Amino acid sequence: MRDPYNAFCIHTDARLQGAPSGPLQGLTFAAKDLFDVAGHVTGGGNPDWLAKHGPAARTAPAVQNLVDAGATMVGKTHTDELSRGIFGENAHYGTPTNPKAPGRVPGGSSSGSAAAVAGALVDFALGTDTGGSVRVPASFCGLYGIRPSHGRLPLDGVIPQAPSFDTIGWFAREPGLLARIGEVLLGIDVSRARRPRRLVVADDAFAIAEPATAAALRPWVERIGRMVGQTETRSVSSEKLATWLQHQSAFQGREAWGTFGEWVDRNNPRFSFEVADNFLRGKSIDDAAFEAARVFRAARRAEVAAWLGADTVVALPTTPFPAPIAGQPRSVMWSLRVPVITLTCIAGTLGAPQVNLPLAKVDDLPVGLSLLGAPGADDVLLGLAQAVS
Amino acid sequence: MRDPYNAFCIHTDARLQGAPSGPLQGLTFAAKDLFDVAGHVTGGGNPDWLAKHGPAARTAPAVQNLVDAGATMVGKTHTDELSRGIFGENAHYGTPTNPKAPGRVPGGSSSGSAAAVAGALVDFALGTDTGGSVRVPASFCGLYGIRPSHGRLPLDGVIPQAPSFDTIGWFAREPGLLARIGEVLLGIDVSRARRPRRLVVADDAFAIAEPATAAALRPWVERIGRMVGQTETRSVSSEKLATWLQHQSAFQGREAWGTFGEWVDRNNPRFSFEVADNFLRGKSIDDAAFEAARVFRAARRAEVAAWLGADTVVALPTTPFPAPIAGQPRSVMWSLRVPVITLTCIAGTLGAPQVNLPLAKVDDLPVGLSLLGAPGADDVLLGLAQAVS
Repeated sequence: MRDPYNAFCIHTDARLQGAPSGPLQGLTFAAKDLFDVAGHVTGGGNPDWLAKHGPAARTAPAVQNLVDAGATMVGKTHTDELSRGIFGENAHYGTPTNPKAPGRVPGGSSSGSAAAVAGALVDFALGTDTGGSVRVPASFCGLYGIRPSHGRLPLDGVIPQAPSFDTIGWFAREPGLLARIGEVLLGIDVSRARRPRRLVVADDAFAIAEPATAAALRPWVERIGRMVGQTETRSVSSEKLATWLQHQSAFQGREAWGTFGEWVDRNNPRFSFEVADNFLRGKSIDDAAFEAARVFRAARRAEVAAWLGADTVVALPTTPFPAPIAGQPRSVMWSLRVPVITLTCIAGTLGAPQVNLPLAKVDDLPVGLSLLGAPGADDVLLGLAQAVS
Repeated sequence: MRDPYNAFCIHTDARLQGAPSGPLQGLTFAAKDLFDVAGHVTGGGNPDWLAKHGPAARTAPAVQNLVDAGATMVGKTHTDELSRGIFGENAHYGTPTNPKAPGRVPGGSSSGSAAAVAGALVDFALGTDTGGSVRVPASFCGLYGIRPSHGRLPLDGVIPQAPSFDTIGWFAREPGLLARIGEVLLGIDVSRARRPRRLVVADDAFAIAEPATAAALRPWVERIGRMVGQTETRSVSSEKLATWLQHQSAFQGREAWGTFGEWVDRNNPRFSFEVADNFLRGKSIDDAAFEAARVFRAARRAEVAAWLGADTVVALPTTPFPAPIAGQPRSVMWSLRVPVITLTCIAGTLGAPQVNLPLAKVDDLPVGLSLLGAPGADDVLLGLAQAVS
């Protein structure tokens, strides 16, 4: 397969022919290399993981359901190592090219899936989103992308990271296809989804975006507000989003070490320095910090549930800026990472669904507007995304 | 070249023909891949370091001096990544085999040099010793090995690690050759070295060794004591050696981050998890801890100088046990690492020379006795090593 964007893994020729009929008949897709395909090793973006694991016994249900619905899986795509990363830079396999922002990172960790869809190598692609790994590349690559409600889709056959945050998500170039995939995977009927009646503009989230990005998104927020009817500006939380991030990082990092720590200890794998740093931060989280993060998360869920019902959607910037320039020093990328994951940690903390709409550009670089709904309101978001676009 | 021990780097065919005459005429040697050879890239045990650096402009003086003395350099040898490691395990290039203890680590970071000499692929080899990187593999591989006095040999053309601890050292199978190399490199005449008159048996150091190792070394200590004349048992220090280690680790780690931090930041290189962990520990050392380590080191130097004159040598176990089994989990190796570097940090803290004598075995595995002298007493140690053996 031609792959001008370094989107696809070359360690596997996994391919699954779509069923001859079904709602996705004739479409092609790619799956992030965290998804199992029977008979192939799932590489997880790390060569030592690849070398130390055998072929998968069965195909992940999410992949199989898409194939059964008629879509053909044409390959597996690059990911940040073991899904640890937000910019899509992989020290082992190279960083996929951002087809919509040359010289910029694609976003990650579902970097190859985003590049493959943005570059029109496939019609859609599966990713995963633990801390922003579908939403960020969707924003940076100008794609529709969804992180569904946590727990809505089982993660069987997918390399986990932090189970209480892990979700399966997907990318498409059109909101109609994004919704059709949702219908297949989530068993919903988007055409029958209720229309929200209230739009909340999250001013604490918008305050994190760079002014140019906030300004580029603003007209779309107003347009959606008019469609929905009622617009209200408020903060997501009485707590600073920086505090949300602090607890989410502790929670996710500790869970990720729980997932991978024993394997790492046994195998002393090669990671990029930043990925090792990430793991070690998670390893260092003590019981008290972990428990505090649990308590904080429960409190935020209760706080937000009080005003975020099924009739409400929240508008927020998906990322605070468009894709950064690739290849910058770690210290620079680390400082850019903080505001990015401050925004994405909102849905992660809440277990809420979030859809990126690729509506805006800043200096000709894509940057997305997000709609976030109450947990379970995936269909509401997918329906509104179609109506807006 | 035949290399049954995975001792040699394959990225370079560096070879330097020895001068037709000289004190080392006809001998062969290898150099750890931290030493520059003109026209070849110095790899440092890390493929990203190798890829990001160009060929050396000139040959390290230590290498050149040996070549000028008649020895032929036949190749460059594996090292722990950027000399960060004590067991010789390299996640990128594989761990050199310990020719004298199959299935066990060779020790590091001068792992390939030790394996090449122990396996008789060369007559001798150059290594470096910052925190034990010659002494530990000498003990584990049953070799004579020396860490000279700090500052005695300039480190031009050698990748540094922690400059106030870095030294160039070497391995040989015979004490006579160890001394001859010292004569070439250090400009000394070992035959004219003074004989020490007092042997100090370091009981705080022996207390760290496993009983079987201490027992295996004890007859040699007694024999050396009889040769020297006067034997005295005492502690190296009024401070616990565990405290020495704590300060030495802070000092060395911070210096190592000073050496490599900017390059690491710029390149996000791939390291084994443990090497990344090591670097991050160094990065985390704050100014206060660094200053405390400086003060502690100065106090220990003064404390020991009060009783360790040029007429005295100290006997201590080089390592607390023979070579551990290779391939164990990181957590196991980490716990084994602590007593190893507690012993080696003594000479490092003092800037003192130390020679390993491969005199004992435990369960048929080599384990070495060390002689440590006052800074500058390299000739004394090399002379005594010859007399003992």
